[in-house]
Formats: sequence, structure tokens, C-alpha cells
Amino acid sequence: MTVRNAADVLVVGGGRMGTALGAVMARPGRRVALWARRRSVVDEINGARTNEQYLPGARLPDGLMATTDLDAAVAGAAIVVMALPSQSFREVARAVGDRLEGDQIVVHATKGFEVASFKRMSQILREETCTQKIGVLSGPTIADEIVAGHPSGALVASHFEEVVERTQRLFDGSSMRVYGGRDVVGTEVAGAFKNVVAVAAGAVDAMGFGDNTKWLLVTRGLYEMGKLGVAMGADVLTFGGLAGVGDLAATCASRLTISHRLGRSLVERREPVERLLAELPNAAEAVPTTAAIQRHADRLGLDLPIVRAVHGLLHEGRAVEACLEDLMSIPVGRELSALRIS
Amino acid sequence: MTVRNAADVLVVGGGRMGTALGAVMARPGRRVALWARRRSVVDEINGARTNEQYLPGARLPDGLMATTDLDAAVAGAAIVVMALPSQSFREVARAVGDRLEGDQIVVHATKGFEVASFKRMSQILREETCTQKIGVLSGPTIADEIVAGHPSGALVASHFEEVVERTQRLFDGSSMRVYGGRDVVGTEVAGAFKNVVAVAAGAVDAMGFGDNTKWLLVTRGLYEMGKLGVAMGADVLTFGGLAGVGDLAATCASRLTISHRLGRSLVERREPVERLLAELPNAAEAVPTTAAIQRHADRLGLDLPIVRAVHGLLHEGRAVEACLEDLMSIPVGRELSALRIS
Repeated sequence: MTVRNAADVLVVGGGRMGTALGAVMARPGRRVALWARRRSVVDEINGARTNEQYLPGARLPDGLMATTDLDAAVAGAAIVVMALPSQSFREVARAVGDRLEGDQIVVHATKGFEVASFKRMSQILREETCTQKIGVLSGPTIADEIVAGHPSGALVASHFEEVVERTQRLFDGSSMRVYGGRDVVGTEVAGAFKNVVAVAAGAVDAMGFGDNTKWLLVTRGLYEMGKLGVAMGADVLTFGGLAGVGDLAATCASRLTISHRLGRSLVERREPVERLLAELPNAAEAVPTTAAIQRHADRLGLDLPIVRAVHGLLHEGRAVEACLEDLMSIPVGRELSALRIS
Repeated sequence: MTVRNAADVLVVGGGRMGTALGAVMARPGRRVALWARRRSVVDEINGARTNEQYLPGARLPDGLMATTDLDAAVAGAAIVVMALPSQSFREVARAVGDRLEGDQIVVHATKGFEVASFKRMSQILREETCTQKIGVLSGPTIADEIVAGHPSGALVASHFEEVVERTQRLFDGSSMRVYGGRDVVGTEVAGAFKNVVAVAAGAVDAMGFGDNTKWLLVTRGLYEMGKLGVAMGADVLTFGGLAGVGDLAATCASRLTISHRLGRSLVERREPVERLLAELPNAAEAVPTTAAIQRHADRLGLDLPIVRAVHGLLHEGRAVEACLEDLMSIPVGRELSALRIS
């Protein structure tokens, strides 16, 4: 059995979020291991202390040690933080799972569903690993700003108090305030769902509307997120927290996020989605997530007009004007009626 | 007794919000009366169809008819919409109340508390008028964008179904989608509270931070809003709707709002609040509201760190850096713990 220090952490994933989370944890003089598949990314992080493809211009701290050796990296880690695109999550989770012992904690920071199964990432972790100690980290965490050291905040949710507390401790003394919670389902639904709404927010921005229009859209999107989440067993309050509206609002406000950029370019360029996707630096989680949510909502009989509109934009080639007209012609009734008890 | 048509509406207040609400209701060919105290404002609206002091550049619709004659205006109105600064609300409510008969509906769109009493505007309406049919209209309603005709949304809350439905009907066919609700307290608390958080958001923007920092602040501000609201009898869900997070987010995102401008100039100019206030085109509701909420929170024994920080900025001459440091040094614990049941 390998001797591990409780503070030893491994980040799995050398993209935007993995690199940023590794950097913020490594900042107060703590060593953080980061596994990436590509040798070029690992060499660049260890050598030049940069990851130009994903975080252009950012200088990474010396304590961040990248590796391609998954065996050694997993063996030495007390806590594994998975930060991967949702559609490659299962494959890497399986590889990590093959190397885990039962006492290790696995927290993920991936915002999406597995399309074919509509499974959440924590469900995949349960299927592909032996650990029970699973958590999810989410919130308004735009990678570039994390690396820049700006104050930020997130939520770690787990059924295990130990997972929450030990994850919180990883960020002690850093610029990221990590709150604790228990609602794993709500946190995962929120993180996936926000990318759908952010595409719509990007489109509305590109159409030249102001903040009234945008935040009407985002607030109604939050309601749809809550409807889906509650139908899946989430606590409705989670959607009012950092992983819910915090992440949703930041993603919709920021011109840096992939989903917002995609929504904007749909309006500005009027080109097929495939061509726009090819120019984005990271996987656009909104594309598979929208398909997955639309299908699941249909199965559940849930009416989610904004999801339907974004599905029209991304997967049916509909024009943004027609989608907006659909949304504006829905009769107004009681607000939040599906969530209210009275 | 005066003969009134159910569609006859009077807006009381010729400032930003009153003029904007009058304009959006008058748009689909409906006549809307607007009472303003100042003859010059009334003449400009009726003549040039502008209100340059409050809504520079905006062209107002022909159906908006301004008057200084409160007797005739109130007598002819089936629905009165009060849109006034909170600190002059009671005086005008009394004048309107002296002229009301019991069958008229009064809806207000004022976002603040009466400082001395910590009363909500609907409480003042109940004290100063004979009508029971009271409602509150709130949401992400930045005046300039309403007048520009951009799609927007709001909530009208009332204990009376009739008030909700008749207010909704005033906006039929307009660019504003008005949802209905019952939670008057929550709607009023949210509308007042958001101005406090928006000052902090403006300050954070001026300090050069990005969206992670800003939406961490806003989301924690939303939690404080919910804590105060629930302590006052509100339904927590209201804070996740248009009058809650919708208005809060729009106000914090927009560089047009008075509260955001005040927060920004506190950081950029480092001058006394009084001097900065003199340059703002409308009453800065945040200033009296912050004082009122801080005092009330102290009485209730509620811990509201962001309110305390903004109170420090506006009323104690504290530096923004010290306030931010205070906020960042609060221990993180369970998120939303004061609102969760489990």
C-alpha cells in the first residue's frame, strides 16, 4: 500500500479547468500533481510554466507538477480532482478507477451529462471506481480569472462530510472560497444546465439587447434548471447558490466562456454549428448537454421552453429570431408555479 | 362618482421608472396618464415627447399624457401605479389617498424602505389610502431599456388575484412580460435589498476583478437578501425569480444603474459620498436603504456581511479594500445554512 499524505492532491485533466484548479491549489506553497494525456502539455507546464493552448498568457505556479504517468499519480494522491470534458469522462474515470484504492476521495469539476445515458458524472464515478467518497465541485469558476488570482467562490457537495471538509481544506489560504453542501444531484444538474442558458444569453447579447432582456432570459432559465433538478431529486435551494445561479450568471455575463461565445457567434456569423465549434479552444459542453436535456425533458414530460429554443439553434438549424419569438409568445402566468407549494 | 374604464391607468411619478412604465403601457395605442409634480416635466412630455433629465434621448409615445392635476388624474384612473423615490413615497401616497375611492387598484414600483420606520411601500399604502387592492411591480426593469422597447419581464405580486390579473392586462401586447405572484413581502424586500448589493458590485467592477468575483459577491448577496426576507415572512422562492435574482443580477450587471454607478465612483474617485450623490441623475436608493437594513438586521440579530460592508462604504467612510478583506476572511461553512431545513 502506498503512503499518502492527506494533502496530496491529483488533478486529472490538463485543459482550462484542470489547469486552473491545479494552479489555485498549488498557490500557497502546496504541491499539486496534474495528469494530462498529452506529453506536450505536460512538458510545457513543467518547463515554461504555461499552458498556452488553454490559458493563454497565464503563468502557472511552481508547485504544479504535471505528469503523463497515471499509475504513479493516482497512487500518490489522497484526493483526486477530475476536470475533463463530459463526453470523455467515463473513459478516464475507468482508467483512474482501475488504479484507485477504496480510501481515496474523488471529486469532479465536470459540467455536463453523459449524452447517451443521461448519467451525471458522480454516477459514472460510482460505476467506474471502487470509491464511495465522491464529491462535486462547482460554481462561478471562469478558468482565466482563477489563474489570475482574483477572489472566487465555489461549492463542494457530497453525501460525506469528510469529502466536503477535506476538499475545503485544499483551498485554505487560496483565493477561492469553497462552501460545503450535500446536494450532489442539484449541483451536477446546475453545472450542466447553465451551459444551455449561456448559449441563449450569448445570442441575446449579439442581437443587441440590454440587461433587462438578458436577465429575464437567465431568470427564466434558472426556473427551468430548477424544474429539471427538482424532478431529478435536487434541493431547490441549491439553484440559488454558487453552483446554481452563481455559475449561471457568471457564465452568461462573461464574454470569456465557451457557451456564451458559441451563442454570440451563432448570431453574428450565421454559419453551421460544426464550423463555429471548430474554432473554440475547448469542448463546447452546451452542444451535447442540450441534446441530452431535451431528450430527458421529453421523457419526463417537462416543458422547458428555453432548452427547446437552444436545441432549435444548435441541433435543428433554426434562426434566433424565430426562437425568440416563440419564447416571447408563451402566455405569462404565475411565476415559478411548478416549484411553489401554494 | 366618476366613471372609469378598467383600462384607465395613472402613473404617479415623472422620474426614470414612472416615465418608462408609462411609455411601455402607452405603446400599443393605449392612453396612459402620468402625474408629475413639476410643470416643466409635464410640458416637456406633452410637447416634445421627451423627458431629457431622466431618460436622455428617449422618444415617448403619443398615448402618454402628463398632468400636474392630481385631482382629475386620480379620479379618472381605475389603476394607479406609484413610481416614486422611497423617501418621498409617503407624502405622495397621502395626497393620492385623499383622492382615492375604495374600488381603485394601487400598484407601486418603488424599491426601498421608509428609513425611519423600516416600513415597506405597501404598508405605507395601507396606512395612507383606503384601498385594500394593493400590489407591487418589480423585476429587471432598467428604465432606458424599457423605453427602447427591448423585451423585458417583471413580477406583479398581490394578495388579490384581481390586482395581479388587471395589472398583467395593462402590459398585454407590450414588450414587457408580467408574471403574477402572491409574495408581496418578498417582492418588496428584494427590490430594496438589490440596491445595496449593486453598490458592492459596482465597487468590485471598479477594482478590476472579473465575473468570478462579482458573481460570488452577488450570490452571497442573494443569500443575505433571502435571510432578511425569510425573517420578515417572505417565501424564499421569490428570491430566485424576476423580482429577486432577476432584478439583482441586472442591476449588478448594468453600468446604467444608479447603485452600480455609485459603487464604481466610490472606488474610482475616492470622494465623499455626498459629493458623488450630487452628480447622479436620480435618487440613489442604496443610501437610505443600506442604513435602514443595517439597523433592522441589528435589531433582528441577523448577520449580513455584505450589507455591513456597504454600510461601511456609504455611511462610515471605510475604504473598499478593508471591506473586501473583511468579506474574504469570513470562515466558509455550509452554503445557505440559514435557509436550509436539513
